[in-house]
Order: sequence, then C-alpha cells, then structure tokens
Amino acid sequence: MAYVTIRDIALRSGTSVSTVSRALNNTGRIAPVTKSRIEKAARELGYIPDSRAKAMRSTKTGLAGLLVPDIRNPYFADLAYAIQDTLFNAGYCTSIGTSSEDSAQQDAYIVSMLSQHIDGMIIVPRGGRTAALESLVTMEIPTVFVDRHVSGMPQIPVVDSDPLPGLQAALGDFQAHGYKKIGYISGPILDSPTLQEREYTFRTLAGALFGEENVFVESTSFSHTSCLPVLRRMRQSGVNAFIFGYSQDAIQAISIFGSQGATIGGDISLVSFDDLELFQLLTPKISVVSQQVQKIGSLGAQIFLNLVEGGEQPDSQRVETVYFPRQSVGCAAQDK
Amino acid sequence: MAYVTIRDIALRSGTSVSTVSRALNNTGRIAPVTKSRIEKAARELGYIPDSRAKAMRSTKTGLAGLLVPDIRNPYFADLAYAIQDTLFNAGYCTSIGTSSEDSAQQDAYIVSMLSQHIDGMIIVPRGGRTAALESLVTMEIPTVFVDRHVSGMPQIPVVDSDPLPGLQAALGDFQAHGYKKIGYISGPILDSPTLQEREYTFRTLAGALFGEENVFVESTSFSHTSCLPVLRRMRQSGVNAFIFGYSQDAIQAISIFGSQGATIGGDISLVSFDDLELFQLLTPKISVVSQQVQKIGSLGAQIFLNLVEGGEQPDSQRVETVYFPRQSVGCAAQDK
Repeated sequence: MAYVTIRDIALRSGTSVSTVSRALNNTGRIAPVTKSRIEKAARELGYIPDSRAKAMRSTKTGLAGLLVPDIRNPYFADLAYAIQDTLFNAGYCTSIGTSSEDSAQQDAYIVSMLSQHIDGMIIVPRGGRTAALESLVTMEIPTVFVDRHVSGMPQIPVVDSDPLPGLQAALGDFQAHGYKKIGYISGPILDSPTLQEREYTFRTLAGALFGEENVFVESTSFSHTSCLPVLRRMRQSGVNAFIFGYSQDAIQAISIFGSQGATIGGDISLVSFDDLELFQLLTPKISVVSQQVQKIGSLGAQIFLNLVEGGEQPDSQRVETVYFPRQSVGCAAQDK
Repeated sequence: MAYVTIRDIALRSGTSVSTVSRALNNTGRIAPVTKSRIEKAARELGYIPDSRAKAMRSTKTGLAGLLVPDIRNPYFADLAYAIQDTLFNAGYCTSIGTSSEDSAQQDAYIVSMLSQHIDGMIIVPRGGRTAALESLVTMEIPTVFVDRHVSGMPQIPVVDSDPLPGLQAALGDFQAHGYKKIGYISGPILDSPTLQEREYTFRTLAGALFGEENVFVESTSFSHTSCLPVLRRMRQSGVNAFIFGYSQDAIQAISIFGSQGATIGGDISLVSFDDLELFQLLTPKISVVSQQVQKIGSLGAQIFLNLVEGGEQPDSQRVETVYFPRQSVGCAAQDK
C-alpha cells in the first residue's frame, strides 16, 4: 500500500514540503505558477487529504462511529440505516461496527474507532459500564446512546422508546379478544436495562388488568433453542396469548408453533415488539408493538449533530411505542 | 472533545514530549522511574495510541473498510456479518459503510475511509468504474470485491457465486413438477454485471430445457412497485412458475400474490435467489438458489488478509450456488 504524502508531492513538483503544505492549505504566500504545479502533482499522484491532519486543524473528521449489537437483526439494520441516512445528509459518513452482544468486542471497536479520531459515537450499548465507555466520558467525546442505556452513566444522552403506551394497547387488545391469561417472554434481559424495564412495565400493567395470578413471565437467552421449554411450560399453564419483548424470540416461536401445527391467530395469539418487515409478510400478519425505530434513529443522529457541532448538552428523549393490531391476535377459545 | 496527546502526558508527568515518545514507543534510553511515571500519566489521562502514528511506523492500523449497498437487505447483513466475524478473529476491526446503491455515496465513503488510513477495503461495488475505485488501484490499497465485480477492473480479485449449478437444479425441479413455461424476474440489472450474468445463464439453460418461446424474462427497478406490472404481464402470458434473480423482488411478489389470493406452491410456484431467514419462516417455505453467502464472506475476508499481510496477489474465486427445494414449488395445474 502506498499512501501519497505531501513529501511525495514535493518530490514530484520539485518544491519543498512546506511549500506544498502552504499550497494545499491555502495558507501563506505562494506564486500562482508554483501552486498550480503542486496541485497538478497532487492530482496526478491521487493525493487524498489526511483527515487526521485536518482533524488536528479543525477538530472535525466528518466521520461518525456507530456501534450496534448485531447487524443481522433487522431492527438494528433499520436503526443503522436511519442514523446513517440522517448523518449523510448532514455531511457525515458513518462507520458501523458490531459488538456481537459481547462487551470485550464492543470495547475493542470503541478503542479502534477512537484511534481513527472520529468526531463522536452513537452506541447501542451492551451490558453495563466498561473501561472504553468510561473513556468516552473522560475524553469528552460526543456520545449518544440509542435504543438502550447503561446504568450509572447519566452524562450520556439516551434516545430510547417508552414501552408503556404500546404494551397498554396490546394488553387491551388481548382483553377485548377474551383472553384471561397472558404470557410474556422477556428475552435475554440479564444485561439489558431496556428489556428489564419492558418486563417491569408489562408486569405492572398486566397484573392490574388480569390479576397477578394470570400473568406468566419468563426470560430467555441468546440461544436459538431457549424459547422451546419456555413456551411448553406456559402452554401447560393454559396460556394461549403471548407477548414477546424481544423480536428474535418471536421469530423462533412462530417457527416452533408452525412445526407443532398450532394456528397463530386461532389456537394461539401473539404480539411481538419491533415492526420488522417480515412480520407483515407472514400469514397471518403479526401484531406488533413498534418502537418507531426510524424516529429513534433520526433523533439519535440529531442529538449527535448537536453535540458535535458544539450545541448545549441535550436531554435524553423517549419515543412512544405504538401498537399495530394485525391478524395474529384472534378470539380466545380454549382459554381457561 | 479532547483527545489526549503525548504533549498532555508530558505536561502531566513533568517530562518532555520526546521523552514521552521514547517511553511509549520503547525506543531509546530512558530511566525506568521516568518511564513508569510517564506510563502512569498516560493511563490516568486515558491515552489511546494514535493508530495514525502507529500506521506510519508499521503501515498497519488493524482497521478494514467494508462497503455494502444496503445493510437493511438481509443478504448483505449476513455477508457483512461473515466478513466481520472472520476479520475480528484475525485481529481486525471492520468499519461498515453503505452506498445506498448510489455511486456518489460509494465514492464519498471510499474517500472518507482512505483518509482514515484503513489497511484495505472489501467492497460490494455498485455500478461501473468510478474515480474512487480507480484510486484504490493507483494507490495500491489492498482491495477485494465480493458478491459483484466491476467491468474493466481485472486488477481487483473478486469472490462471487457461480449462478449455473443452482439455476440448473431449480429449472430441473420445475420441469419435474410439470411446468412448461418459466418466467424469470432479473431485478435491477442495469448497473449490475452479476445480475446480468445471472439472467444470461438463466436464458441459456431455460432456453435449452423449455424452448425459447416458453421462456419469459423481465427486469425491474429498485422501486417497491416495479414488480406488479411485470407479474401481471407474465401471468397473462400463462406463466405460473417464477424464478427471482433478486430476492427483494421475490419478497415483493410474495406480498403481491398474497393480496391477490394466489396460493404459492399451488396456483403459483416460485424460487428465489438468496437463502434469507424469512424464506424459511414463511408458509409455505420458499425454495431458494443459495449463494452460500457465509462462504463468500469468509473467502473474501481470507483474500483480504492475504493481500494486507503481503501475500501474493490472489486469484478471484467463485462459490457454487446450491438449490434448496422447499414447499413453494408445487405441481403444475393450469400451465398451458
């Protein structure tokens, strides 16, 4: 690999490094004929201005670092797209890294991105406080958390969704369809304050609406088989109405119900968090609690831009969840 | 924002910049007590070694640039994941950018990534030759194309798939189910040599198997409505068996057929390129020509590593497509 330096341009144009620097940066006096010779040499060599050097002068590189847990999860793909789209229109390129839901990989990416002198970071954090997350605060790097927050880091603004309105509407729909027992599969909540809040909100709302003895809650792991025993236990308890706090579990469950010959919207009713494209392609279409990911992404990007461009420290913001009823909630039949 | 520099460390530790430089780089003589004082100051300030400076010394930054057209397309999300996973295990972080199928945005990302002094790039190119793509060759930046190639750039190795084996098997399946007419929807082929090759291969194979008069081929655009008139025209010509060269079109078509009340695997049979997760979740499950995206990704990453680590110029490689028959191909009924 051969990056063209101003030394190469000086050699090619028969001038000095300092003259090249003055010519390319438009600083100091320089003869027009020399300037044009230097610019020609720079063009011919394919010189690309070093954003590191530009950053030292202007403290801006035009590069934003975005870290998401898993780009294969369509929810995060939609979120990444919304953020990138907003930032590109504002003149920033977004470099996306993924943590694979692993704190060590998250920290490796943050360190790598910092050493590239990005202007700031937008992070869907994974787990709790880590050394690299702390260093973002110490170094005063403009940082925004989206979709999730980290306990004990109030300095970093957060854009996430408020689970209450969507859950309330979904529970109302189950009630209207005659269900008496509700199961909630909360996902891999261990390190996720967001999933924990979602579960807590569900418990509070459902307990008040259906009575605590009719509310069944279990968590899962990231494993692809963790849903199976949970669903079996719940159905044995007479639960036929399910809410999934984590859409990847809902996808697993749809596949499990399909292989068991259970009809969704008939034998079983279900609602999932996150309005994934595939939920509208399935038959029946799946009712969802949407987090309005597009809105979360563009708000997160907007707060990032305010921070980078030296605005006041912005407040955290919450986007309301919205319930979209479709065909996966049918009338209760065998609910006891 | 305040990046910690060696000047800050010199101030904190009461030494000179050149002493700090020697201490952190392990070059030259330095008293152990001074070295430990400097290292303590670096730790306290949260100093992160500047990979730009490291790059100037070692010519390696440990950062790979990856450019894909759209991260929301699950095929590219799977590809990006496979590449990143392979590179992370080899000690590289991958920075993902997206071109949104737009050559100008593609070039903006390449320039931005180059100015970050990445070690090289893996690109799913969009369209033909551009100034930024050319500059990768001029500057001898290690570059690999995956999934697609660019006409007239033979210097850059390509890892893509060979459409023939999978298409041949899919056509054989249609024939075995009694179909006499086959429709092929080739996707937005205008700027895509890959989609063009796929269409050409289909024409050749299907023409030989079914006779040219029974083979119907149409392309689409990136627009979300471009499938509708194509499907209407084909069905009016008596076509009930479809192959989709571009999976996003198949997703559109499944939704269109659903809203028209046509049963897939019954009234209509279809096969799509790309083994997306959702194709296995749909009822009926969709038969696919898989490009083995995992294999393309890890091979692409492997070639990238060879290039970056100074191996010989590697050859381009092709991964065989594989046909997975599922439930979306049923027996021909009204085929005339």
